[in-house]
Amino acid sequence: MDFNTKLYFYSKAVEKKLKDYIEGIEEKSVVSEAMEYSLMIGGKRIRPVLALAFCDMLSGEEFDINYALPYACAIEMIHTYSLIHDDLPCMDNDDYRRGKPSCHKKFGEEYALLAGDGLLNLAFEIIFGKFGDVEAEPSMKCGAILSSASGVDGMIGGQAIDLLSENKQISLERLKKLQDLKTGAMIIAACKIGAVLGGGSESDIENARLFGEKIGLCFQVVDDILDKTSSFEKLGKPIGSDESNNKSTYVSLLGLEKAKQLADRLTCEALACIEPYGTKADFLSELARELLKREK
Amino acid sequence: MDFNTKLYFYSKAVEKKLKDYIEGIEEKSVVSEAMEYSLMIGGKRIRPVLALAFCDMLSGEEFDINYALPYACAIEMIHTYSLIHDDLPCMDNDDYRRGKPSCHKKFGEEYALLAGDGLLNLAFEIIFGKFGDVEAEPSMKCGAILSSASGVDGMIGGQAIDLLSENKQISLERLKKLQDLKTGAMIIAACKIGAVLGGGSESDIENARLFGEKIGLCFQVVDDILDKTSSFEKLGKPIGSDESNNKSTYVSLLGLEKAKQLADRLTCEALACIEPYGTKADFLSELARELLKREK
Repeated sequence: MDFNTKLYFYSKAVEKKLKDYIEGIEEKSVVSEAMEYSLMIGGKRIRPVLALAFCDMLSGEEFDINYALPYACAIEMIHTYSLIHDDLPCMDNDDYRRGKPSCHKKFGEEYALLAGDGLLNLAFEIIFGKFGDVEAEPSMKCGAILSSASGVDGMIGGQAIDLLSENKQISLERLKKLQDLKTGAMIIAACKIGAVLGGGSESDIENARLFGEKIGLCFQVVDDILDKTSSFEKLGKPIGSDESNNKSTYVSLLGLEKAKQLADRLTCEALACIEPYGTKADFLSELARELLKREK
Repeated sequence: MDFNTKLYFYSKAVEKKLKDYIEGIEEKSVVSEAMEYSLMIGGKRIRPVLALAFCDMLSGEEFDINYALPYACAIEMIHTYSLIHDDLPCMDNDDYRRGKPSCHKKFGEEYALLAGDGLLNLAFEIIFGKFGDVEAEPSMKCGAILSSASGVDGMIGGQAIDLLSENKQISLERLKKLQDLKTGAMIIAACKIGAVLGGGSESDIENARLFGEKIGLCFQVVDDILDKTSSFEKLGKPIGSDESNNKSTYVSLLGLEKAKQLADRLTCEALACIEPYGTKADFLSELARELLKREK
């Protein structure tokens, strides 16, 4: 399979499974509708794709996508919940997400709050076996990685630093810490979970972690660049919001050129982490390059 | 140990362990401070106490409180997160909780949002072994019970019905469904988790479930009664809020006298569920009676 076919295969499988899970909710209401809206509104599905790709690469012939999909979907649910809560008026107050009204704009704040809570919770319900499609051992391992990445020592901790840094010039070091937690932790978790599910050794899991760290950081640098250089049409949300919100970004701290150089260097470093896997890593290498080149 | 000594023993053990867990957070910030504030602001600790008491009763001589405490604390964290999010301006907009400023009044909405998210997440981190004090088998079982009770087919589903019922006269049947999910599910989960941890048989777990169902419903009926008959001083929050919010309650639908009779009957039915355990159930019987008599 070439890169685009494989990317399509992974992301469609994730989307179908996400839909199945939402359909499996018994208490249908505005909350489950809002959960579905935000989950299915699109997005690049990078995190679940990373988990599937690492599992695929390390499993080889024995790769069974159904074994990895519950965890890939749990990762995407937690990512989506964080976007819903981040967009709320008391946080970033964003009216748009992926070119469509953000969850609270569409359903109201109270339902967006509960939809976020519901998705975070549903991710863990899946890992604890709500739908009977997981096994205990990988669930305990992957649940530990995921919950730690999404928690107060991970993503939520990063959001806390983000709030405290508003309207403030912060140092490059502080910005890196913020992004490592807010964006990096979940991307790293996705790579590690894929490696665990693929039966990877300790050194495979460490390679996955390091690859995730590099592309996670690169992802954020590119985000900052796009907020400066892209357009509403391409990005699906207003550009220039970092500057108008007085946010410190890699672009504001390094300048556009140096930020671009940093993104290039991080991608090279990421590629080095998966070099040991030779052509088996072709998909992940291509993905890293695509994430660098992306326009949205 | 008499009832009050045992209640004190259980609740102090929970509070100490909750404090340990909060101290175990690496990323100290306003968010972790807000998590601690809401967790330690007091409260009756009924849910964790129920879990400990069921485990104690069924384990007999072999009861080891440290085995059950992580799960008891996870239950209390999820309960606390739900109160924080429920108090937010877009939900019930409550300025007080247990006689003190609610979390968002004290720390601001954005930090209260993240503190709630952080507590929900931390509960699952604990069950997945963040602090190394749990075992895989009980964690998978108790995690499944807990996450299902707190999710969109449990507590969050109940909150959704609650929102949809605002300013509306709803039927007694609908009110029961709402409360079964919003309040009942987590109380039932606490009892079932205690029974599982105590090595209970299927029939013990079913007794625990039924006991939880009865006292959970009774708890809500008494809440509705107190909102009518108590005072700010006793309750730690304004009374009459149900009436001023036009909420359907057991008191508004049945009248005060019939609501009191219902609470009595439910307590009797709860006591019948634990009769098979004889004097070993003394603590739980007394607890059920105390919950009926409570003034706050």
